[in-house]
Amino acid sequence: MDLVSRLLAGDAAALARAITLVERDRPAPRDLVAAIHPHTGKARVIGVTGPPGVGKSTLVDQLAISFRQTHALVGVLAVDPSSPFTGGAILGDRVRMARSSADPGIFIRSLATRGQLGGLSQATGDAIRLMDASGRNPILVETVGAGQAEVDIMNHAHTVLVVLAPGMGDDVQAIKAGILEIGHVFAVNKADRDGADRTAAELEAMLAMAPDCGAGGWRPSVIRTIARDGRGIPELARKLDDHWDWRQSELAGWRRRQAAAELSETVEVLVGSRLREWAVKSGRWEEAVDAIVGRRLDPHRGAETLLSHYLNSCPGEGARSPTGCRTGRRRNP
Amino acid sequence: MDLVSRLLAGDAAALARAITLVERDRPAPRDLVAAIHPHTGKARVIGVTGPPGVGKSTLVDQLAISFRQTHALVGVLAVDPSSPFTGGAILGDRVRMARSSADPGIFIRSLATRGQLGGLSQATGDAIRLMDASGRNPILVETVGAGQAEVDIMNHAHTVLVVLAPGMGDDVQAIKAGILEIGHVFAVNKADRDGADRTAAELEAMLAMAPDCGAGGWRPSVIRTIARDGRGIPELARKLDDHWDWRQSELAGWRRRQAAAELSETVEVLVGSRLREWAVKSGRWEEAVDAIVGRRLDPHRGAETLLSHYLNSCPGEGARSPTGCRTGRRRNP
Repeated sequence: MDLVSRLLAGDAAALARAITLVERDRPAPRDLVAAIHPHTGKARVIGVTGPPGVGKSTLVDQLAISFRQTHALVGVLAVDPSSPFTGGAILGDRVRMARSSADPGIFIRSLATRGQLGGLSQATGDAIRLMDASGRNPILVETVGAGQAEVDIMNHAHTVLVVLAPGMGDDVQAIKAGILEIGHVFAVNKADRDGADRTAAELEAMLAMAPDCGAGGWRPSVIRTIARDGRGIPELARKLDDHWDWRQSELAGWRRRQAAAELSETVEVLVGSRLREWAVKSGRWEEAVDAIVGRRLDPHRGAETLLSHYLNSCPGEGARSPTGCRTGRRRNP
Repeated sequence: MDLVSRLLAGDAAALARAITLVERDRPAPRDLVAAIHPHTGKARVIGVTGPPGVGKSTLVDQLAISFRQTHALVGVLAVDPSSPFTGGAILGDRVRMARSSADPGIFIRSLATRGQLGGLSQATGDAIRLMDASGRNPILVETVGAGQAEVDIMNHAHTVLVVLAPGMGDDVQAIKAGILEIGHVFAVNKADRDGADRTAAELEAMLAMAPDCGAGGWRPSVIRTIARDGRGIPELARKLDDHWDWRQSELAGWRRRQAAAELSETVEVLVGSRLREWAVKSGRWEEAVDAIVGRRLDPHRGAETLLSHYLNSCPGEGARSPTGCRTGRRRNP
């Protein structure tokens, strides 16, 4: 039985193997992703983000166990954008997710990719598709921080849960400003600590100032949790369910936005690497780098020049489209 | 006197205005960047990164004042990747940088951009160029976090200073794994707090395990600081100078790597947006999104198909290059 069939049957080893393939090989193995794509779109995806040290992993652990009361197979994906070089998984996850990792109904994986801009978000999309096709539902996607990469990753989620904790120092205002727009549900974790009430109140005040979404719009709310002993988890799970119910009312719109965002990202990375490949082979890459270093060319004009040479080099030749640019074409000398 | 001349003469108001232009308008105003590019490459750029709450701004404040003892004009750029939507500056910076902002020899600016992948790193490159052309040297570039966006931003720096603090909770291992490879100098700030010795010792142990760079290679080191009262700042500034001296020995190589990384990023964003524009106009974008939502097409094949149609649509027409693809060409029907 091949990898795809085993994966579609829910086999955990096949799922793990497939995720390794999309994580390691960028661009992703096309045949694998194409084969499973028709079987996707069933799972509910919950993104969990927030700054370091707020207890996200423990909270995800508790949520996974809570969802298992009503779902046969739950997926957890811990995305690690902090380590583009090591390619390693988030250390310590196994420890903090001890409870849910003992349950064979919960599939846990860390994800990291080396290299290119956008690569991690694309790999996350592929890994979610693989989990989805293998029957994992819901899928919890955890990521550290609130930078651009994390925002891109959260595009894959139907619901975004933002986790904060009291006493996070000076940068908390900046963090809040960055994640207010992407969060649907907010948890103030470690709610037994000093300052929890203030953090929750500040957050509520900031949310109250956000533009009104009108009738039928979603109003984010703040839940206090103590993930370590499970307090607040039932309330949090209920609020996530509420958002999922709300999401149904505009699921078609969300699906189009999600597909457009992912296509946009994929196009950018694909055509960028195609152009770079051509430029390196033709020697124009080195030429442009030399000119930039020698201050004869700035990077913007360098990119424009490369693109214009590329488009004049007949790059469409050999493409499948039968029309245009073919008759009487001659190669660049 | 126009903006460029005033900027080149070191005028702070002109510099502020120019940075607003490259921050707000993406793609950047080409003529402005092209005009100042020949006057760049003189400044030393120091990147400062680390997780929220470790006291980066206070440390940068102290370093800026320390550098002013030997430099006439110092630049500080606070990059805010946490807020791609609000476009706002990091709140509270004015407060934490109170001392250096009272010195007219120190130019301080926050930077944020809305939108696209890679946009913030590109805007940072442009803002550094503007500061460089206006005689600011050294330029301190501060950013929160250690995600992909921050790593890209650090490509612009000759020296990367990573700031940590004791007692950062569970995620500290993950943070360290992500920033070990990009740091040249490490500061353990708030060194009077409990756990400072442990944090410094752990860090030193991890650095000792890093692959040996061989003779002439740079060995990262760990400095303890208390930015609030200035303790450790002279030692830190000295270590940064040591790295700058070391960097001289391979400056040509660094310049090529830096130019290549920036060109790569610029090419990707440029060609991606060009293709997307064409696809939206021709109706192929909506077609592809529909097919992905309907599960008839996965994003990778969708991107491939768009690219192949684009390259067959004679996109090079009108480009300045005089060769190739022109004779007998006919338009896509």
